[in-house]
Amino acid sequence: MRTPDELRELAEQSLTRLPLADELDGLEEPVRYSLLAGGKRVRPVLCLATGEALGRDAEELLPAACALELVHTFSLVHDDLPALDDDALRRGRPSSHVRFGEGVAILAGDALLAEAFRLALRYPEPGVARALADATLGMIGGQYLDVTTEGEPEPEALQHLHALKTGRLLAACVECALAVAGLPEEERGAWRAFGRDVGLLFQIVDDVLDATGTAEELGKTPGKDEAAGKTTYVSLYGLERARELADDARARVLGDLDAIPADTSVLEELVATIRERRS
Amino acid sequence: MRTPDELRELAEQSLTRLPLADELDGLEEPVRYSLLAGGKRVRPVLCLATGEALGRDAEELLPAACALELVHTFSLVHDDLPALDDDALRRGRPSSHVRFGEGVAILAGDALLAEAFRLALRYPEPGVARALADATLGMIGGQYLDVTTEGEPEPEALQHLHALKTGRLLAACVECALAVAGLPEEERGAWRAFGRDVGLLFQIVDDVLDATGTAEELGKTPGKDEAAGKTTYVSLYGLERARELADDARARVLGDLDAIPADTSVLEELVATIRERRS
Repeated sequence: MRTPDELRELAEQSLTRLPLADELDGLEEPVRYSLLAGGKRVRPVLCLATGEALGRDAEELLPAACALELVHTFSLVHDDLPALDDDALRRGRPSSHVRFGEGVAILAGDALLAEAFRLALRYPEPGVARALADATLGMIGGQYLDVTTEGEPEPEALQHLHALKTGRLLAACVECALAVAGLPEEERGAWRAFGRDVGLLFQIVDDVLDATGTAEELGKTPGKDEAAGKTTYVSLYGLERARELADDARARVLGDLDAIPADTSVLEELVATIRERRS
Repeated sequence: MRTPDELRELAEQSLTRLPLADELDGLEEPVRYSLLAGGKRVRPVLCLATGEALGRDAEELLPAACALELVHTFSLVHDDLPALDDDALRRGRPSSHVRFGEGVAILAGDALLAEAFRLALRYPEPGVARALADATLGMIGGQYLDVTTEGEPEPEALQHLHALKTGRLLAACVECALAVAGLPEEERGAWRAFGRDVGLLFQIVDDVLDATGTAEELGKTPGKDEAAGKTTYVSLYGLERARELADDARARVLGDLDAIPADTSVLEELVATIRERRS
């Protein structure tokens, strides 16, 4: 089994060489601009590592892994638009709409989403594409809640929003690997618990980083949630307690992995990097 | 076999009752607002009629037919945005962004596209969803050309743009029916020629209507292409010649249908309504 870094390199290469539909024409540049901006590739690595833990070759998982990163990138490009989160900086560079204009950024996001499905549909079975469609709808629903919720949401509402906006796509990374591996339905429960909990861990860490990181470290505008009056784990519980909650979430994720009858050592390593990441 | 009007009614009912992902929450309203605004349903009817000509029950085609209308509606919602075509009127009502704001309209368009794939993925085989993904990418590429082309394009460039922006999704209506019917690859050529040519017919008629229709008839702003300095069949060839070209295109489509070894009488009727439509 390959290490998270090796899997990240594999995903990066695959994304770099990704063939795009000829018809996209001049849209290819903005699509690649956002896709190849040096993201952490958490989603593809999670998908590849889950696939390897399930006994498959990472190569077999690559179309699914890349499709997940394309959906993630689609969401970043659209969420950064002035009418949504209005963020001018992304992955350390001007956001797509700053670089290419709003109209092109909208179309580039659309193209990323459609390309994601084209990739997910390379498999003979529709399971990967179905997981992707469900997760994308959850993510869009979460972003809708995020931009329309007024005032301070209750902790439960915040957790629901995060579960949709961030959690659903991370859970889909695991779900897509289950689909490719063709694991029997009755053996999927333990894996799904892991997929669900890893999303929560990721989000709490994200909130802590937004409150403590620098623009240089993050490659995006820090302190933005606070400035926008958004409720986060830090605003709800304070920094200290949010860090404890992140540690609790990590413990839960590691417990999930313990319950899985497979070699999950690489996934454990990946969970550690998610908790300890600085960007 | 059912008439185009009966098929339109069937598609309308199916769209009205379409279940949407629970997670869309408050986005359900803007999604249904754009979807149920009384469009002509040309794409679903074309898909259903092709399916019936291929000997299948229209009901079997409904998920594909609705998915095609969702992709069409997604493109309208995004294309109407201020950063793209900036159109305030659509199907006789305020455009999505005028009614709900730009941010929500962007998310509603995204949700329509993702729901379209969820629908297309109801089939056990991925053929319908693949046709949809390919057509969507072509359509997005066409819209990119439309918003970025400066000056008067050559007639060939105009035809290429139309073939992408309008033609690809209309051709996909036929392609999706072929996928559901499982027609052998070697028998698909004649059907595909029909799908390609019907798109061209539709676009020429659209250009003529943009130059001659009223807002009341069209349910959208007429004369907009001319006002925006856009090249159309009318601006390139004049109204008289554009009408002749529409008649030529109809003759070619009817020739395509003649070459198909099946009862295409309902499709012929549909072609007549496309040529003679006033809106």
